[in-house]
Amino acid sequence: MAVPEYAIGVTLGAPHEQVVPLVKKLLKDEGFGVLCEIDVQAALREKLGVERGRYLIIGACNPPLAHRALQAEPDLGVFLPCNVVVYDAPDGTHVSAIDPQSMLGAIDNPVLDEIAADVRERFGRVVAALS
Amino acid sequence: MAVPEYAIGVTLGAPHEQVVPLVKKLLKDEGFGVLCEIDVQAALREKLGVERGRYLIIGACNPPLAHRALQAEPDLGVFLPCNVVVYDAPDGTHVSAIDPQSMLGAIDNPVLDEIAADVRERFGRVVAALS
Repeated sequence: MAVPEYAIGVTLGAPHEQVVPLVKKLLKDEGFGVLCEIDVQAALREKLGVERGRYLIIGACNPPLAHRALQAEPDLGVFLPCNVVVYDAPDGTHVSAIDPQSMLGAIDNPVLDEIAADVRERFGRVVAALS
Repeated sequence: MAVPEYAIGVTLGAPHEQVVPLVKKLLKDEGFGVLCEIDVQAALREKLGVERGRYLIIGACNPPLAHRALQAEPDLGVFLPCNVVVYDAPDGTHVSAIDPQSMLGAIDNPVLDEIAADVRERFGRVVAALS
């Protein structure tokens, strides 16, 4: 699957249930804890009665970077945590991490530029390790 | 407090513990369920041992709009749910909702433009009702 410009992603042949723990381990290795997990398939089934493929949103947070970002920009929590999604695509299991540089690039704050570049590098290594 | 261009917000005189349930009720009235809540103060205390004021991230989701958005743009989950933050500011309790038009405006997809405008209106009414 094509990866849009706001994400860093890869499509894998392995099934969802193998990919999810691997993604979490790689995130942990890069200093990210999982602050929330949202099972979109279950939520949409419950709320709307619709059936769709598996779709998990993993809310990842690197505490030192989040702390610095919130000190530099108090409202930044509207963008946190940084999400990684794992979902069933027609050609396999797709993983996409948000590209924080595309998300935060419009905010005029040099501290954020630095943090976004750091998160971008870490997510890039996670996706590269999956590939 | 000044509200940055990527958020819709207001600062209130009422304390955090009164503001949070009111925000959730207003979100519910606009069709948003709460998919996750992150206590940033507790997380940073636990992970880094730092003390800061209360800071709650409320992950809000309107299921029909989320479903449409994901059909139009499979990777869009990296931006979901839409966050509303409630935190202790020097001049009161600050509430900021993300402005989805500023966040998604760079994505070239007319369906998303429509959904972002709808969420923007709903969040605008939530913040107006708080004011």
